[in-house]
Amino acid sequence: MRIAVLGADGYLGWPTALHLSARGHDVVGVDSLVRRRWDEECGTDSLTPIASIADRLARWQSESGHKIDWHQIDLCDAAAVDELIRTTQPDAIVHFAEQRSAPYSMISPRHGVETQVNNVVGTLNVLLSVRDHAPDCHVIKLGTMGEYGTPNIDIEEGFIEIEHNGRHDRVLYPKQPGSLYHLSKVHDSHNLDFACRIWDLRATDLNQGVVYGTTTDETALHPQLVTRFDYDGIWGTVLNRFCVEAAVGEPLTVYGKGGQTRGFLDIRDTVRCIELAALNAPAAGEYRVYNQFTEQFSVLGLAEKVEHARAAHGLPTTISHVSNPRREKEEHYYNAKHQRLLDLGLEPHGLSETLIDHVIQTVEANVSRVRRNTIEATIDWRKGGHVYAGGRAPALAALAGIGG
Amino acid sequence: MRIAVLGADGYLGWPTALHLSARGHDVVGVDSLVRRRWDEECGTDSLTPIASIADRLARWQSESGHKIDWHQIDLCDAAAVDELIRTTQPDAIVHFAEQRSAPYSMISPRHGVETQVNNVVGTLNVLLSVRDHAPDCHVIKLGTMGEYGTPNIDIEEGFIEIEHNGRHDRVLYPKQPGSLYHLSKVHDSHNLDFACRIWDLRATDLNQGVVYGTTTDETALHPQLVTRFDYDGIWGTVLNRFCVEAAVGEPLTVYGKGGQTRGFLDIRDTVRCIELAALNAPAAGEYRVYNQFTEQFSVLGLAEKVEHARAAHGLPTTISHVSNPRREKEEHYYNAKHQRLLDLGLEPHGLSETLIDHVIQTVEANVSRVRRNTIEATIDWRKGGHVYAGGRAPALAALAGIGG
Repeated sequence: MRIAVLGADGYLGWPTALHLSARGHDVVGVDSLVRRRWDEECGTDSLTPIASIADRLARWQSESGHKIDWHQIDLCDAAAVDELIRTTQPDAIVHFAEQRSAPYSMISPRHGVETQVNNVVGTLNVLLSVRDHAPDCHVIKLGTMGEYGTPNIDIEEGFIEIEHNGRHDRVLYPKQPGSLYHLSKVHDSHNLDFACRIWDLRATDLNQGVVYGTTTDETALHPQLVTRFDYDGIWGTVLNRFCVEAAVGEPLTVYGKGGQTRGFLDIRDTVRCIELAALNAPAAGEYRVYNQFTEQFSVLGLAEKVEHARAAHGLPTTISHVSNPRREKEEHYYNAKHQRLLDLGLEPHGLSETLIDHVIQTVEANVSRVRRNTIEATIDWRKGGHVYAGGRAPALAALAGIGG
Repeated sequence: MRIAVLGADGYLGWPTALHLSARGHDVVGVDSLVRRRWDEECGTDSLTPIASIADRLARWQSESGHKIDWHQIDLCDAAAVDELIRTTQPDAIVHFAEQRSAPYSMISPRHGVETQVNNVVGTLNVLLSVRDHAPDCHVIKLGTMGEYGTPNIDIEEGFIEIEHNGRHDRVLYPKQPGSLYHLSKVHDSHNLDFACRIWDLRATDLNQGVVYGTTTDETALHPQLVTRFDYDGIWGTVLNRFCVEAAVGEPLTVYGKGGQTRGFLDIRDTVRCIELAALNAPAAGEYRVYNQFTEQFSVLGLAEKVEHARAAHGLPTTISHVSNPRREKEEHYYNAKHQRLLDLGLEPHGLSETLIDHVIQTVEANVSRVRRNTIEATIDWRKGGHVYAGGRAPALAALAGIGG
């Protein structure tokens, strides 16, 4: 099938594009490359060296024999999105193309507004363009488990049956998002549900957990095919950050008590989940939600796993509790359902010491590239914060593009 | 107290500003005047002649002896909002300043995106500016009953207690908004809830029903103080439209079966509800929701009330069921709670034949101004539509202001 991958230059978009291409799908790759500019703004960089998009695409073609049809487009440009959908007529669209960092959205008012406009407008443009130019196309949208927050009841997959005053209904699961970024995803989810109810589109919303790991079968084929590895306080995810802290001899920094529990999954499961979603399109008018993660861990529990994996190699590690920059519950009930992708055939990779070893090896191989000043959290949920030394203010032209 | 009224040039913002001013509050009036430009774009106009904002303000001062401190500001201009909040230091902000027409939001993709950006960015800018410059200020935001849709369970005031798998939580009431405009209000509600949870702001969200009537004690003082009366297919509300249709000898047009049931209230109750909300500020960190309406009617039931009121004067009226341009349930359960404003002292005006008579008189006095070509619904929820003959495309400068 023809699948457009929006955000195909990103941490997960790139491995997904390769995986779908390797599996024989006709992949259309789309990205504005803004993520590279955000790195420049923040003073951050991927631990793994990332090739230019031209080199990535050429290398993939020479290694695999498959060609990805590349389009550099900003989804906030409605006319460009219309042209893309009208001319490529995808069977499915996989939409990763959003500002995806909670801390970034909390730096300043401008960053918060930019995040919500970028994400909401991009997704609306895709939905409206699909309605008008490819109404049978299946929209697969990356949401996040963070949309749910930490309710005191079980988290269901997108919808919940409610009995109230003797009557029943099935409704969207109530959300308690924890940042201006997470809110943007909740807004998207409501817009997606609406597009299915009112325009009979078909959509799958993948509420993904925290992804760890950096290597898939396809990215491992050549150094020019590797994907990003973010470990800093703005873009990094927690397991990657712990492994970097350990490698440079710093304590693993747990925010607050560390009882914050979240869903996690291996990057190899992400790319597989995407194909499973694509192969199982909802009916016209159906808005479907999967919770895309495989295991739950607390942040402190994860730190202890890293400590244990290193101890097996005789490497000492300490864990340090630092003041929590976020405003969130540090001890709470958490039980999130994640059955629907298993029912479609997902065979999960559990988080093993082997995997942690592999991440630590990736870090060791690139330890000279670690920017130690970018590990600390500099953005407070209550009052904002700042990017790292070396960051460059974005060009006015880039800002003017917001909402355009 | 000092109260900033955002959207003070609008149908309800203007009477609210006058009412609060008459009650002795120190009113700061804020508007971009974009509503007048939207009329030019759509080929629509208020049935009642509306004075310029300069004449309105001068007339209010000469009639009442009270001065409204006027600021022409677009809420999408973050720097202007910061300057406003920082220099005026309001005790409360009443926020009406949004694109408030569901049909307008469904005209075209551009109108849908414009609506969501305008409303979400304006509200975000207000919240962020209050956080940074007036953190004790009480934000009173106009939501809409349309955020809830038509669930098969009772509609509570903003939150619902859920028991699920033997556990309990109190969560935001799940929403099923029915247009891109209604979605923008749901997005706002989530952002407001977040601002209270994370930044300890205090906010009241007024989920208002459909307002009818055109006259308050203050707008009745002088013809230059009257507020808008919208009856057209884009901006009009249903009772006003029925009264205009009757006045020009057309059948009352009911969309579909007419079993659509909604909450309604008198404009005199709107202005009173706003003051009640302002006089009862939530604690820091509390997000409070009131359902602001006084009675439930079906659309067909409302048409029959108009027919009955006219029959009492010997005037014949017919009711015609036309194809529903919206996609919505035409027969459904509807039971929405609306107790909290009554608890604060609201004494509701019920919809009486006297009121309908008064609306019909307003129409008769202005019948020569009726634009008959603007009564028909031209915007279909499935495929969009068009503005009325005589509408003018907006200036590029106005469009460029979106999200700026």
